[in-house]
Amino acid sequence: MSDLTIYGNILSQPVRSVVEFCKLSNIQYTHKDLHPMKGEHLTEEYSKINPFQEIPAIVHDGYNVWESAAIVPYLADSYNVDNQWYPKDIKIRARINAYLHWHHQGVRAVITNYIRQKIAGPKFFGAPELTPETEAPLRAKLNEWFETFTWMLSETHYAARTQTATVADLFAFNEIECIYLLQVDISAYPAIKTWYDEIAAIPAVHEATAAAQEIIKAMMSS
Amino acid sequence: MSDLTIYGNILSQPVRSVVEFCKLSNIQYTHKDLHPMKGEHLTEEYSKINPFQEIPAIVHDGYNVWESAAIVPYLADSYNVDNQWYPKDIKIRARINAYLHWHHQGVRAVITNYIRQKIAGPKFFGAPELTPETEAPLRAKLNEWFETFTWMLSETHYAARTQTATVADLFAFNEIECIYLLQVDISAYPAIKTWYDEIAAIPAVHEATAAAQEIIKAMMSS
Repeated sequence: MSDLTIYGNILSQPVRSVVEFCKLSNIQYTHKDLHPMKGEHLTEEYSKINPFQEIPAIVHDGYNVWESAAIVPYLADSYNVDNQWYPKDIKIRARINAYLHWHHQGVRAVITNYIRQKIAGPKFFGAPELTPETEAPLRAKLNEWFETFTWMLSETHYAARTQTATVADLFAFNEIECIYLLQVDISAYPAIKTWYDEIAAIPAVHEATAAAQEIIKAMMSS
Repeated sequence: MSDLTIYGNILSQPVRSVVEFCKLSNIQYTHKDLHPMKGEHLTEEYSKINPFQEIPAIVHDGYNVWESAAIVPYLADSYNVDNQWYPKDIKIRARINAYLHWHHQGVRAVITNYIRQKIAGPKFFGAPELTPETEAPLRAKLNEWFETFTWMLSETHYAARTQTATVADLFAFNEIECIYLLQVDISAYPAIKTWYDEIAAIPAVHEATAAAQEIIKAMMSS
């Protein structure tokens, strides 16, 4: 039986994506909690697991892999996974991989920049609070992005233009879920709202999202 | 026998990476030239091949795939490739995939931003020429980036920390090759210089690079 450890805190969107993929694929793992806000990913020990000192990373039977979107195919191949989330069909994989490569700048960059400026900066790094004037362009960019993501979903209702939800939808959902923190109402984007509610209801996603929101609530009230 | 068409102009760094991978893997293809500066990727016909209207994209036996870093694994699996550039070994693939996911923001974003502001903007889009003052922060960021890439190469001498050159090095090289356009001397970064000269000497890389530089020379003098 193989041995798998996932390093990283559930607060991290990419950690949630990897954890959810494992649960949906019946891959057993040990979760080693490393909290980025406490700098627990910055140790010399963890640098040997992920030289980039980012989360998540995994150690599988003694071999370390980092970068969430590289961890998924590695685990899929290691555990002989062939489910809807990351099937063996190379045509579907090509769609998922194309999405995952677009995801970094196409999704994560826009949303994390907003969160950094609105929440993380003022709350934890002494940056000034956003004013309605300084927040407006960030909100405008997010709304523009919602139009893009509506277009992404328009072909098949799923992020990677596949016939079912895949890991692409997990990765997308875990970023977009941050609208909770940003207090954004997505009802003006009905295609996204329908998709969001569908992905949110997947038990593994629901569980990880609830755990992350618990941590956020504790952090925001501290 | 399968039928493969690669769409895109050799001027594009990701197109060169895909073309070089095909040549190094003995994958036969037809090259359909689409020149981005002429807007040839913006047609309705091409949108059916790549809805993002970016290059490269491929059509392989009637199936379209876009995003260069998704095209490589698709082709590797379709053509049963198992060479140093993208081996079947899932541990090595994990390193290559981790690099390719980092590449977008870690490499391409820094270098293309500089090129856009120094060359493409003033030459083709009416933006003001950079002055020594406006260029200085871009050059500082590039130098900082050279330190990062030196660190990337420090473990094994290759971009993905593998024991041989892989497609990761092709993707990295084709971006870094733009120092030709930016007139940057990399001799202050000997690890990069040694690596650069090694990758540049690979015949498939040399050929694609020379073809791109020809196009650039013609564009710059027109």
